[in-house]
Order: sequence, then structure tokens, then C-alpha cells
Amino acid sequence: MRIGELSRRTGVPVPTIKYYVREGLLPAGRLTSPNQASYDDAHERRLRLIRALLDVGGLKVAAIAEVLAAVDDPGRSVHKVLGEATDRTVPRYPGAQDDELEAAREEVAELIGRRGWRVDHNNPAAEALAGALATLERIGHGEFAELLDDYADAAERVARVDIAYVGRWAGLEDVVERAVVGTMLGEAVFTSLRRMAHVDVSARAFGNEDGERTDPPADE
Amino acid sequence: MRIGELSRRTGVPVPTIKYYVREGLLPAGRLTSPNQASYDDAHERRLRLIRALLDVGGLKVAAIAEVLAAVDDPGRSVHKVLGEATDRTVPRYPGAQDDELEAAREEVAELIGRRGWRVDHNNPAAEALAGALATLERIGHGEFAELLDDYADAAERVARVDIAYVGRWAGLEDVVERAVVGTMLGEAVFTSLRRMAHVDVSARAFGNEDGERTDPPADE
Repeated sequence: MRIGELSRRTGVPVPTIKYYVREGLLPAGRLTSPNQASYDDAHERRLRLIRALLDVGGLKVAAIAEVLAAVDDPGRSVHKVLGEATDRTVPRYPGAQDDELEAAREEVAELIGRRGWRVDHNNPAAEALAGALATLERIGHGEFAELLDDYADAAERVARVDIAYVGRWAGLEDVVERAVVGTMLGEAVFTSLRRMAHVDVSARAFGNEDGERTDPPADE
Repeated sequence: MRIGELSRRTGVPVPTIKYYVREGLLPAGRLTSPNQASYDDAHERRLRLIRALLDVGGLKVAAIAEVLAAVDDPGRSVHKVLGEATDRTVPRYPGAQDDELEAAREEVAELIGRRGWRVDHNNPAAEALAGALATLERIGHGEFAELLDDYADAAERVARVDIAYVGRWAGLEDVVERAVVGTMLGEAVFTSLRRMAHVDVSARAFGNEDGERTDPPADE
């Protein structure tokens, strides 16, 4: 197909496609005449992946180039390629003090051991979890950590569904695209569903028809 | 206690406490002499709630005043007060086109009906979910919506744990504080755990010792 057709199919403007070719993100088309190039399905797939990494994953062009190099390296396992792509989309939680963060990191390492998860302690998501736990401790809500294993149960269920979805693949680029899109937008979906479920559970626990306050169940 | 002790206990600087009193967020202390006021546990609880709404929930002072008015209104049910506080912390997902958003809203309404959730269709979290689903559709990943009920199962489990935690209360201000902190930081905790579980599930599905790529299971 010509560059105009590639643009129409992917929704990416022609000058942007040319920019990706110049930056080495997208291979050049096959020249069919001195000033005309032809693009194929591989270009379309690569372009969709670039847009997913950029628009949904929030990666910068240099980071996208590194992810694509991993995709193109046959010596890298699918697991490693997925890590290259998704690790770069983990948000950072700064602001906790050193002592609290150190204690939280130990708590996370214990959790990883307890769950039998094949996750490195230096994984960005493990570091983000330690940051969130340290913040909870700092603001006097360290007790929340008691819910960790219940949360981990639910997270495992969601992750199994996610990976089954990602595994419906046609090629490595599709897998990486699905992983980035599913990781990022799946967060928005789960976050919204959890809040909706809160409303429902709260209505049943604390709501009543005439709007009066009922005594909540005492815990201790 | 004196204002200095209140500041020490809550970590909120004295000038900030005075600002909250001037803005009507915190009741004035009881005057014990012409230039000395005494504060009690109720002030401490209120101050902690203000800081949770501000620092963790990201609410502005005007919004905090409205949440506190709901807390102080005995005609408002606990369920309504929780909604006042947590609805204001829902992130917005803009950018989807009208047609896609309209279709996504219908999908969300169907989900609410199917789950039997006591959630209004105009709830901000329902609107955020519709926004995320519309974005998925727009970028060619509408298929992800097939996972909605699996996600909802996990969200219900987490929500039940959350509300049990919030319900361990000493007073309405503590409940609201726990709800805001648990909602916001619980999102960071779950998000991190889901990503860690991804790494584990991916290692088992796609990783192998020597780094070679194995054929993934074909879905269709």
C-alpha cells in the first residue's frame, strides 16, 4: 500500500509516519519508483504498536526505540520483551522517607516470597508498591497493609485474565501492544469498577431509605 | 491541648492550622485566656481528615468545606457522606468521541444492571469507566470489554475487603478519612500488585531459562 493508505488505516498523519521512519522507529517502505514507496501489513502492525506505546503507555521516542529493539531481538524471550515494554509505564510514588521505604521494601519482599511470585525485588511495580505502603505508614494508615493478601488474591485473578487476553496473539508486536494497552487502560477499568463496587457495598452497609444514620457494626 | 501540641501530634504547622480556622474548615479552639485557645481530640480528628482530603484525595479547600458540611449534617446517611468525599477524587478520562462514549455508557448501564449494583448511571466512576471503554474502542481494542465481568468479580472482592476496613470505625470522620485514604492509596497498591502478578504469570507463560522464544498457545 502507499503511505496515504497506511495513514488512513492507522489514523497516523503522513508527516508523522515520515518522522518515525527518519527516527528509525519504522522501517522505510520498499521503493517502487524513485519517489514512491510501498508499505505492507508489517508496517501497519509496527505503527499501531508505536502509537500504543506513545499514546497509551506514555513512552518517549527514545524509550519506544529500546522497546522495538527488544521486539526485534530474537534472543529475547517474550517474557523479557513484555517486561521491557510494561516496566516503562509504571508510575513513580516519591515522597516517602528512607526508614519507612526500607521497611516497606522488606514487607514487599516478604509478600513476593509468600505468594511464590517470580518477581525481582527491584521490579518497578514492587518499588511502586513499597512507595505506596511507605506513604500509608507515614500518614498513620499502616494498618491498611493487613489487606495486602486479599488484594494480591484479586490481583492474581485479574492478571490471569489479562495474560489470557494478551496471549490471543497473531505476532509479538500484537502481544506487546495488547500488553501495554491492557495494562494501562485495564488499570482505569479496574479502578472505576472498584469504585462502583464501593458505592454498591456502601449502599448496602451504610445506606438507608430515609437518609438517617444507622449505627455501624463495631469491630472491637 | 494548646495549638503547638495539636501541631506536633498531626504534623500540621501552626500557621496552617490557623488558616483552616479562618477558612471555617476547623472550629476555633475554646478560649482559656484572651490570647490562648485550647484544642481537643475532635480538633485532632478533624485536622487529620482535612489533611487526608487535601494530601491524599487531592481536593481543593472549597471541596473540603463541602465534604465537612456533609459530615456535620446529621440528616445525611453515612453512605451519602462517603459518596460526597470519594466521588470528588475520581479522575476524568477525556478525549473519546460522542458516539463511542454513548455506546460505552450503555455498556456500563448494562453491566450495572447485570451485577445488581446499587450505582447511579451518572456516578463519576461509571462515567470514568465509560471513558476508558470508549478509548479502548477508539484505538481498536474494544475486545478488552469481554473481560469486564472477570474484572468486576475481582473488584467486588476488593470492595468488600475495603468496606470492612473502613467500617472499623471510631467516628464518622475516621470512616471518611479511611475511605479517602483507602480508595486513593488502595488504587496504587492494587495497581502495583496487578503488575507484579503480570510479571509472575508472564514468566510462567512466556519465560524460559535460556531466553529463547517459545511458541505461545494459539487461541483460534
